Amino acid sequence: MSWEEGFRASPYHQFLGLEFALVDGVAELRMPFREELVSDAEIPYLHGGVIAALLDTAADYAVAAQLGHGVPTIDMRVDFLKAVGREPLVATARVVKLGRSVAIADAEARNEQGELVAVGRVLFSTR
Amino acid sequence: MSWEEGFRASPYHQFLGLEFALVDGVAELRMPFREELVSDAEIPYLHGGVIAALLDTAADYAVAAQLGHGVPTIDMRVDFLKAVGREPLVATARVVKLGRSVAIADAEARNEQGELVAVGRVLFSTR
Amino acid sequence: MSWEEGFRASPYHQFLGLEFALVDGVAELRMPFREELVSDAEIPYLHGGVIAALLDTAADYAVAAQLGHGVPTIDMRVDFLKAVGREPLVATARVVKLGRSVAIADAEARNEQGELVAVGRVLFSTR
Amino acid sequence: MSWEEGFRASPYHQFLGLEFALVDGVAELRMPFREELVSDAEIPYLHGGVIAALLDTAADYAVAAQLGHGVPTIDMRVDFLKAVGREPLVATARVVKLGRSVAIADAEARNEQGELVAVGRVLFSTR
Repeated sequence: MSWEEGFRASPYHQFLGLEFALVDGVAELRMPFREELVSDAEIPYLHGGVIAALLDTAADYAVAAQLGHGVPTIDMRVDFLKAVGREPLVATARVVKLGRSVAIADAEARNEQGELVAVGRVLFSTR
Repeated sequence: MSWEEGFRASPYHQFLGLEFALVDGVAELRMPFREELVSDAEIPYLHGGVIAALLDTAADYAVAAQLGHGVPTIDMRVDFLKAVGREPLVATARVVKLGRSVAIADAEARNEQGELVAVGRVLFSTR
Repeated sequence: MSWEEGFRASPYHQFLGLEFALVDGVAELRMPFREELVSDAEIPYLHGGVIAALLDTAADYAVAAQLGHGVPTIDMRVDFLKAVGREPLVATARVVKLGRSVAIADAEARNEQGELVAVGRVLFSTR
Repeated sequence: MSWEEGFRASPYHQFLGLEFALVDGVAELRMPFREELVSDAEIPYLHGGVIAALLDTAADYAVAAQLGHGVPTIDMRVDFLKAVGREPLVATARVVKLGRSVAIADAEARNEQGELVAVGRVLFSTR
């Protein structure tokens, strides 16, 4: 299985409905809305952990596109800028550093209006 | 709906199968294993975003237990210490600071052997 | 005292020898090398805390340039990409979010060869 | 030079006036107040970068006490809980994980009243 097939075959990626694309070398992920991702039964907005998963995966995908294989996450920081309702999100990511021990990638997620809703910085092990 | 009922009623918390408990004032969450949470089809281990969601929710629950309502996450850091296989996790959290503008809580997740698998530090808005 | 005079009058900024400039709306800081900033007596490279101070200040300066006053740091993440020797650094920063409660700014530091040596993401209180 | 002699011989540690001690296996650092560390000429409080340096160094010292040598910082998160005036600080740190590739240590800083003023989580390379 190629790394791209591996990304698509991931059970959690499939649950999230992630669609992967490399657009001019930039990793791009689309995540449709689904009801199970809602955090609060009364005020419907997406759970932060789902947005963290989207950013982590986009960042991983950006590194994988350069290395030819996925890499394990060591740590990540996520900043939530705007609440997300019943709407799809698009995440993009770019590699900040690709070293022999670690890689860093920055990811951002936007809603359908193109508004920035969250940013993530993720450290991966490249050994 | 009380904040505790709200936590239990969350669609994403229900998807994750989270069980909430306050044990001697410490927020504790149990998350059973389920196949949709697996990151990699070939080497079955939990997706980091799921572990981030668990830590974020445990930290939120710890703050909510003191404030009487859930609080929105501003940012979070997650460190992944050990890969998690087909196994349940338990997360605990404690409040580091409870201020008028922001609160900070630390969360940790352990596997069935009691090994630390991940730690999180989460900043919430308390306004 | 204006916020720019305040930045220049700061005792720690003066100790670091920071030079401030707004170049096309981008906050830019120059930090000359000085011996007291060295971390290790045997292998001379800059202390990480000094680089963190540089990034924090550049990010603060970027927010201050928009708000007209400096803002207190709530939290920050710093990633160290490359060791820094007996050399000056230049940091630039840009605002990611400017909200009523919090602001986020990204900062990066480069050496004389233009190589990226560290990146920072900083959260400020804007109240 | 032993690692402890190395810590004491560091020019930046000497500038900060850091005093090192291992108290029951816990790394402890004392930092006296000095005027050059002040951030703002008008409202005298310590620069966040100095507090970041203190936490980073305490965390490094905790890892060094176990490994027998200092380790380079990969990344760090610092949360500032309370402004610090013209007062000394004490930082303590403990190792969260000590692995073959990376180590994580948590550090905290308190003022003379014993109030928590900042916490840090630091990732080091152990290769």
